[in-house]
Amino acid sequence: MSSNSSHSGVSRRVLLSALAMLPTFSGVLFPVSSSAQTATSGAPLASWNDGAAKQAIFDFVRATTDRASPNYVSPEGRIAVFDQDGTLWVEHPMYSQVVFCLDRVPAVVAKQPELKNIEPFKTVLSGNREAMAKLTMPDLEKILAATLTGMTTVEFSAEVKKWLETARHPRWKRPYTELIYQPMLEVMRYLRDNGYKTYIVTGGGQDFVRVYAEQVYGIPPEQVVGTMGGTKLGYDKAGKPFLTKEPRLLLNDDHAGKPEGIHLMIGRRPYAAFGNSIGDQQMLEWTAAGAGARLEMLVLHDDAAREYAYGPAAGLPDSKLGTFTQALYDEAKKNGWSVISMKNDWKRIFAFE
Amino acid sequence: MSSNSSHSGVSRRVLLSALAMLPTFSGVLFPVSSSAQTATSGAPLASWNDGAAKQAIFDFVRATTDRASPNYVSPEGRIAVFDQDGTLWVEHPMYSQVVFCLDRVPAVVAKQPELKNIEPFKTVLSGNREAMAKLTMPDLEKILAATLTGMTTVEFSAEVKKWLETARHPRWKRPYTELIYQPMLEVMRYLRDNGYKTYIVTGGGQDFVRVYAEQVYGIPPEQVVGTMGGTKLGYDKAGKPFLTKEPRLLLNDDHAGKPEGIHLMIGRRPYAAFGNSIGDQQMLEWTAAGAGARLEMLVLHDDAAREYAYGPAAGLPDSKLGTFTQALYDEAKKNGWSVISMKNDWKRIFAFE
Repeated sequence: MSSNSSHSGVSRRVLLSALAMLPTFSGVLFPVSSSAQTATSGAPLASWNDGAAKQAIFDFVRATTDRASPNYVSPEGRIAVFDQDGTLWVEHPMYSQVVFCLDRVPAVVAKQPELKNIEPFKTVLSGNREAMAKLTMPDLEKILAATLTGMTTVEFSAEVKKWLETARHPRWKRPYTELIYQPMLEVMRYLRDNGYKTYIVTGGGQDFVRVYAEQVYGIPPEQVVGTMGGTKLGYDKAGKPFLTKEPRLLLNDDHAGKPEGIHLMIGRRPYAAFGNSIGDQQMLEWTAAGAGARLEMLVLHDDAAREYAYGPAAGLPDSKLGTFTQALYDEAKKNGWSVISMKNDWKRIFAFE
Repeated sequence: MSSNSSHSGVSRRVLLSALAMLPTFSGVLFPVSSSAQTATSGAPLASWNDGAAKQAIFDFVRATTDRASPNYVSPEGRIAVFDQDGTLWVEHPMYSQVVFCLDRVPAVVAKQPELKNIEPFKTVLSGNREAMAKLTMPDLEKILAATLTGMTTVEFSAEVKKWLETARHPRWKRPYTELIYQPMLEVMRYLRDNGYKTYIVTGGGQDFVRVYAEQVYGIPPEQVVGTMGGTKLGYDKAGKPFLTKEPRLLLNDDHAGKPEGIHLMIGRRPYAAFGNSIGDQQMLEWTAAGAGARLEMLVLHDDAAREYAYGPAAGLPDSKLGTFTQALYDEAKKNGWSVISMKNDWKRIFAFE
């Protein structure tokens, strides 16, 4: 994810550039099709072409799980972490969570009609993309606060679930949860089959990703680390407790926040880390700083035909979403990290192909 | 743990009352003896006397793991949470972590000699318990900040480890990590044997408890939820990243903070919760509010001969550590929660007996 992030790991720059591309609201009523998780193949990494990236994964697993290896890691220490946006699923033209927030505005206004004529809600409701691109940072914070907080944790999960069932990606016209990279599902499964515990470590909202992570990635809620907000305990009239999501940032789980989030939520250093941008750089450095065999991999978006191509590392302009700089590319090459070319290393991108 | 808590889940009231009982510094050089975890028995709950408490555990496990049961819980949902101080190990005459903080003061002063003549360090170094009992809240915050933060996470773990090897409980003259309740180790093991994931949810410092939780309780670092402070990423001269513990409270994991911490770290509601005081009340209520079969248990300290007896629920004065009020006792009885009498329900308290 991008730099200078704010609450919920979404920076103004990213939000504005993305707003300019947004085709108003994305919610369309369609039934949900089958989860990407169901697409399994027999051989490990079946959707990967032979090459250095695929081999690096095999070598790492053998080095850390073969009892005869000098770099053997006992099962309880086997931790692998994955960024989400741009690493596990499509992040263009806009982070799914931001689309969710904008799509939520009409519902928020319906419950609080007084917001209808108040900025920034008025502008978002207008659908005027040029006006939306001029929203200020405090305006955007208000949208995030209004759409991600103020409800109970149970209500929030229900809202995300409902949205995921109806929202469609503008390019593929499919649910966002189908736009998962099949080769990455296979890496996660291969690591789990070899005793690794797989975690998502995302700049996106922890509560947002937890709603679908188990079904889509096979990753339970307790293994989702994300941008975290505070909650507050309350009791209803019957004396039953509930938690309300508060607009109080505990940790922005992006850039330096990723190692901090890993320490907070996992408490030990991963052996493998997967990312795709400068927002993941510190997480990969943190992983690489451990002793023994470690695996650091970066997904390079260089496939405009099947997905997207963007960023300096692909010889293209910085599109502000998932920035992969030349400096990060150089650091990867210098340190022996793997760069995964979507174009060359992946036989297919999505399970539905 | 007690009410009106501050940073690190330690309230001034608790600290002051405990200071009055402290026999200066507890650090004595002795080799560490074997971990309490090694003491295993064949039959489940072997250290429990037959009775309602033991039966409640058996009934709960059968109800949630028998596929024919209407309250069957699939393995991924099986979460059990345990308070630590007073529930898993001895909390009298003082929380072990507070002893650690006070024991750390000389080392902190050795590194920063200018603190020697500055309060509150001067008073702590004096060993004058009456003067220590008069320390103000800001004074105590300074002690906690100086002893729990300002070092790297690696340095902190090493300090805790070293302290655990040498510190001895004033009554039993044994390492604190041997003062674990054997019947509770058996409950944790029994639940794990039945597919439950066991978590510690403590008002104590998360980083402190993680140092020994795996060896002592069989609970890995990622399953320790505690009072959480922020960290900050830095790089040494060789470019290697490190995390420094900061005096910035993220969550006070006590009272209402326990359900909040459970949501943050686990993301789903537990089926079983074990505590011993009003600091655990909200965690038990949060657990009880879920559907299906749930287990809520409170340890009652009513055994002065073998451990300690304290608190209104045991018909004794409030000793300010691990307060078990009459109101909490009444709530337990009304809701069908189990109260575990240490005196009547436990055949033995410690593995070394």
